[in-house]
Amino acid sequence: MTRPSIHDATLRVRYSETDAQGIVNNAAYLSYFEVGRVEWLRDAGFSYAEFEGCGFGFVAAEALVHYKKAARFDDELTVRTKLAEIGRATLRFEYEILRGEEPITSGHTRHGCVRISDGKAVRIPGDLSAAFEG
Amino acid sequence: MTRPSIHDATLRVRYSETDAQGIVNNAAYLSYFEVGRVEWLRDAGFSYAEFEGCGFGFVAAEALVHYKKAARFDDELTVRTKLAEIGRATLRFEYEILRGEEPITSGHTRHGCVRISDGKAVRIPGDLSAAFEG
Amino acid sequence: MTRPSIHDATLRVRYSETDAQGIVNNAAYLSYFEVGRVEWLRDAGFSYAEFEGCGFGFVAAEALVHYKKAARFDDELTVRTKLAEIGRATLRFEYEILRGEEPITSGHTRHGCVRISDGKAVRIPGDLSAAFEG
Amino acid sequence: MTRPSIHDATLRVRYSETDAQGIVNNAAYLSYFEVGRVEWLRDAGFSYAEFEGCGFGFVAAEALVHYKKAARFDDELTVRTKLAEIGRATLRFEYEILRGEEPITSGHTRHGCVRISDGKAVRIPGDLSAAFEG
Repeated sequence: MTRPSIHDATLRVRYSETDAQGIVNNAAYLSYFEVGRVEWLRDAGFSYAEFEGCGFGFVAAEALVHYKKAARFDDELTVRTKLAEIGRATLRFEYEILRGEEPITSGHTRHGCVRISDGKAVRIPGDLSAAFEG
Repeated sequence: MTRPSIHDATLRVRYSETDAQGIVNNAAYLSYFEVGRVEWLRDAGFSYAEFEGCGFGFVAAEALVHYKKAARFDDELTVRTKLAEIGRATLRFEYEILRGEEPITSGHTRHGCVRISDGKAVRIPGDLSAAFEG
Repeated sequence: MTRPSIHDATLRVRYSETDAQGIVNNAAYLSYFEVGRVEWLRDAGFSYAEFEGCGFGFVAAEALVHYKKAARFDDELTVRTKLAEIGRATLRFEYEILRGEEPITSGHTRHGCVRISDGKAVRIPGDLSAAFEG
Repeated sequence: MTRPSIHDATLRVRYSETDAQGIVNNAAYLSYFEVGRVEWLRDAGFSYAEFEGCGFGFVAAEALVHYKKAARFDDELTVRTKLAEIGRATLRFEYEILRGEEPITSGHTRHGCVRISDGKAVRIPGDLSAAFEG
């Protein structure tokens, strides 16, 4: 069985996500990326909520956003998410946000796996890691 | 010793808090109220962070906002917060947000005291309650 | 022809909408209400984006939220929106947010119709008003 | 007269900026950076609000965040902002966010200057550019 490596999530821009320039505020794209990776995980058979329920979490280590075109209120966007790298204790996701075929933003985020109880970096649990590697 | 009953906190409107109408998004005022009550508590000698550290929290039960004038990016606002009622297990705060002397919004929030471990409603701890009653 | 009076929109709680209490932050529900009324309008045949394109907008006059149960990350919520009152220049929407059948929050918002160019209150345009009245 | 090249702004973490991990949500740091550059500009003698009033704006082209330590509710943070590069039509700011002396995040943002009326890229107005160059 192969693992899905790319997942498309869709969302519609909310009024509260725009700013006085009339476009989506630059910070909102990091929340869209967050939606993208949660849906990527779900599509790969993992609920991030359950993952946290088991005492593990991912903490952000790095985020990069390239802004290409402005998105606006009510735009329907696709968040295309790909697991780009998986290490012993880290994951890197890549994202493209599209309006139809038009690229709006792209970027990546890198995350470390931690034990929630004490925040210490830990190896990614084996079943998760195996599943990701497909 | 008397307890301060009204506290003025000041904040400056951030770009990310505006929306495409060019004004502060309606939801942002609930975050401003939140800033107001945290600063009210600090002024009364209580750190909400420490309160949570002791295993207690306040959860929102009701919020009301009257919008009078629009605030805009970079406006300096005063969040005037008053503890309006204190019950065995609930608090009610009243707020006025001003730009200089001009009323921008007003409203109130009601909160229940909970034990964080299980989310159950509990009496407001005695020292807190006594202090509030002045 | 009758006008739809109640519309159900669905959304999934994002991580960025939660706070350190582990639940949805109290201010986020006003953004959920905003999603609800935008979808209500769309369902009634009106795009709020186009409405603004014609030079009109709705500004918030009042918002009330009753918090009943806490929603959490990844919960699927229904935002049930109803146009409760329509005046010459104002609208009032009522909302219930549900997790399955379980009530999470309820509330209302009241809005005034304005001309965007100068922010002045104006009558709700006739076609919109007629359509709302069904 | 020399131009200030580094500006320290301070802010206190709001409850609404935290997430269910009990720490500041990764997207919030882009809003903190935004506060940092607005205050940098003010310190350099420019109000971003007035700049927009003259028909110009800066749009985000790129943002990078390195997350080093988690910040928490009520932490007092310093946003240290530096204008790192200035081109004909672009600016690049660098940021460090500190809790006392402890580095929390660092990063940069790049922005293009646009004419608001049509969103077209334009040269940075001469007086602004001259002032920045000190």
